[in-house]
Amino acid sequence: MRGLLDAPPRVVNVGLGIFARELAASGVDHLHVDWRPPAGADPRLASLLTRLSARSAEIDAANAEALRMLVGGEPALVDCRPAREAIDLPERVVLHAGPPIGWERMCPPLRAAVLCAIRYEGWAGDDEGARRLVEGSAVTLAPCHHWRSVGPMTGIITASMPLFVVENRARGNLAHATINEGLGKVLRFGANDPSVITRLQWLRDEAGPAFGAALRASGGIELRPLMARALSMGDEMHQRNVAASALLARALMPSLARTARDTGALARLTEFIGGNDQFFLNVAMAAAKAMTDTAFVPASTLVVTMARNGTEFGIRVAGLGERWFVAPVNTPRGLYFPGHGPGDANPDIGDSAIVETIGLGGGAMAASPAVARFVGAGGAAEALAATAEIGEITLAEHPHFRIPALDDRGAPVGIDARAVVETGITPLINTGIAGRVAGTGQIGAGVVRAPLACFTRALEAMLAGHD
Amino acid sequence: MRGLLDAPPRVVNVGLGIFARELAASGVDHLHVDWRPPAGADPRLASLLTRLSARSAEIDAANAEALRMLVGGEPALVDCRPAREAIDLPERVVLHAGPPIGWERMCPPLRAAVLCAIRYEGWAGDDEGARRLVEGSAVTLAPCHHWRSVGPMTGIITASMPLFVVENRARGNLAHATINEGLGKVLRFGANDPSVITRLQWLRDEAGPAFGAALRASGGIELRPLMARALSMGDEMHQRNVAASALLARALMPSLARTARDTGALARLTEFIGGNDQFFLNVAMAAAKAMTDTAFVPASTLVVTMARNGTEFGIRVAGLGERWFVAPVNTPRGLYFPGHGPGDANPDIGDSAIVETIGLGGGAMAASPAVARFVGAGGAAEALAATAEIGEITLAEHPHFRIPALDDRGAPVGIDARAVVETGITPLINTGIAGRVAGTGQIGAGVVRAPLACFTRALEAMLAGHD
Repeated sequence: MRGLLDAPPRVVNVGLGIFARELAASGVDHLHVDWRPPAGADPRLASLLTRLSARSAEIDAANAEALRMLVGGEPALVDCRPAREAIDLPERVVLHAGPPIGWERMCPPLRAAVLCAIRYEGWAGDDEGARRLVEGSAVTLAPCHHWRSVGPMTGIITASMPLFVVENRARGNLAHATINEGLGKVLRFGANDPSVITRLQWLRDEAGPAFGAALRASGGIELRPLMARALSMGDEMHQRNVAASALLARALMPSLARTARDTGALARLTEFIGGNDQFFLNVAMAAAKAMTDTAFVPASTLVVTMARNGTEFGIRVAGLGERWFVAPVNTPRGLYFPGHGPGDANPDIGDSAIVETIGLGGGAMAASPAVARFVGAGGAAEALAATAEIGEITLAEHPHFRIPALDDRGAPVGIDARAVVETGITPLINTGIAGRVAGTGQIGAGVVRAPLACFTRALEAMLAGHD
Repeated sequence: MRGLLDAPPRVVNVGLGIFARELAASGVDHLHVDWRPPAGADPRLASLLTRLSARSAEIDAANAEALRMLVGGEPALVDCRPAREAIDLPERVVLHAGPPIGWERMCPPLRAAVLCAIRYEGWAGDDEGARRLVEGSAVTLAPCHHWRSVGPMTGIITASMPLFVVENRARGNLAHATINEGLGKVLRFGANDPSVITRLQWLRDEAGPAFGAALRASGGIELRPLMARALSMGDEMHQRNVAASALLARALMPSLARTARDTGALARLTEFIGGNDQFFLNVAMAAAKAMTDTAFVPASTLVVTMARNGTEFGIRVAGLGERWFVAPVNTPRGLYFPGHGPGDANPDIGDSAIVETIGLGGGAMAASPAVARFVGAGGAAEALAATAEIGEITLAEHPHFRIPALDDRGAPVGIDARAVVETGITPLINTGIAGRVAGTGQIGAGVVRAPLACFTRALEAMLAGHD
């Protein structure tokens, strides 16, 4: 007893960091255990988790199967065809990003993009005419996700737009995305001036058919090894796609050359590809869609969709089929182009968070310290921390997508809605920032958190069917 | 005094690690200072450094100027032309890697490559005839470095071979390298069968002219930003060039399309480029040569050349002009292709260590943990350690070549021969491993140390002119 009192105190602090900081300030050697009560000590959420825990064995088995489908996907880029052929999209339908939303609740950049697409298709001659078509239900709005497709930012797809076709060769299912338009004034960021439509016409008339002919001649380009390689080259494939874009360009080139209409068209096309470091983003999204679409397994709490429409954030969960669980979307924080600031930012928008559901994007930031800096999230240490954090709410490390900075450990993959609610850690998403005023376009890049309420609602729905 | 004796001991250990390890084993808290006597306590070397230290101010100023020239280089890839046009290389001359060496002392793969090149040029019909030409001095041998050129591994250049032309736009000087042949049986690894010659003929007749036309039409491709970017994508640009190769392919494509003879030739060329992840190596080497060739500054101890001919390792130092300082070359240690082992390895060979003189390769391993593993040097931690180590013998951090994993600190650049001798740390070089039997080709990849004696000899020469 005497010895105990003579010796300096040995302190273990559990929970509140403020005590640990006081001890540190006083020079007392101590061990701090960063413990928090589950679900932030919210009794309702704690009860939710307790009730789900009775079904742990069933859920764990379902999650293992859903994860196996997800990480076992073998996406290949096989074609590029107009939406009317690729997904049988009728005339007078405009697909958009995120969960379902009516015209009246759409944010200004999404509205601007819808109207611009209607003008591009020639269904109306001006915005006013286009608006009348939408308000009179002569044009239908629907989420891309309901049409085996995904779109970045506003995510607009109409019948004549060429879509990349990705086949998941492990299962035979297809997924689709538009051709990335590049930087500047572009439809996906809600820009709507004549240059936007001119580019869309060129994509429709020259680029799309050229990609289609080349891809069909090539027999398809395997995307999983290409994406794994790009991850080892600093792409997290949401904010940074330069490696994947260059690798894809290199892989496409022989077929593009062989099938080119003429060398002038080929020169224009290769210039377009070479000028856009985000060229691969849409392809990565279609690949992710092709992989996640196979992971719907009853009773699984695996998150298979995350998407935003600029008003709401929506998720879908493997065991709950096509149902969306939505909550108001957050606004990204990040870095802005000169002349813009946080006050100009539109709330988060786009289907691109699909890449976060397959272990890329925000959770793979350890592979991409340059992105951490680009989105204002710090440097190499913060990038490692972001990946460690997503590891708290994911089921596994990806067997194919590996991170050299972590000695080739796999990227954390498979967001478990239970773990999100239990830890209160919501997925971190890397994202572009659109101006909130219609027609502005991109104003920056940053990170955003998925709202917790989507995940709690999904768990409630899971119980509702059983209790 | 009492307090001093009552308290636990506080120990600082300087020098021998064995004492520190004993303290650690006994649980004694201690600080270990990893000090070693300069120059390994070798009295001759210590005296050399002392005598040089009298000229520190002059040498430091010269080194600052030499470094400024080195890191200020602005290499651009501007052309591709046969060696006879690009460097006025006469018939019946064979250029090789490394410092000067006579036929009688050449290693078997270098000899095999020389003979193969003579057959390729049609100066002899078989190896026996080729050998007679060399032994009878009807064919002249010379280092690439003496002809404003560099070559990987055996480094063979003859008159009809197309050379990439790199212009250092900061100074107007030119440097050259062959087109990388790809993997498998290739001349640079000393292979010499008919497939080697067939490929050389295709490079001469189709690929070289196509690159030349495209590069001239493009106005040149700036390499410094491309290389900086590739470094941020995991290339150290010696063992790993996949990012730089893909970025260059993407940049070349529009001009290649515009100037293509026909789409079939373009398809063959783009397939060749796309199939070779080391395509950029030769371009990086020519860029490095263009940058280092401007850094010859009197009194500077900056290392401007490191090169190996398979028998000797040679360096050149900025203040000592064209003189070579040579020592027997080491054999790389690393990983071997199946069926091969250390006993099959040829001693180190090639001009490629020029990339280590500009801050890339072995010293930039922190940018490229995948390479550390590939060459058997460990993982991410060892990669960081390799870069920290080269920092001990270099003058600065590169203002353009930055490493994301180090929060964008510059790669250590500017090897100071004084620091090498003082610390005993010799540059670590990433390298391919050639089979020592003629005709084998590549058998692995690894790392190798420059021999210390080159550096001590250079310092001795520096004093010889002054004492």
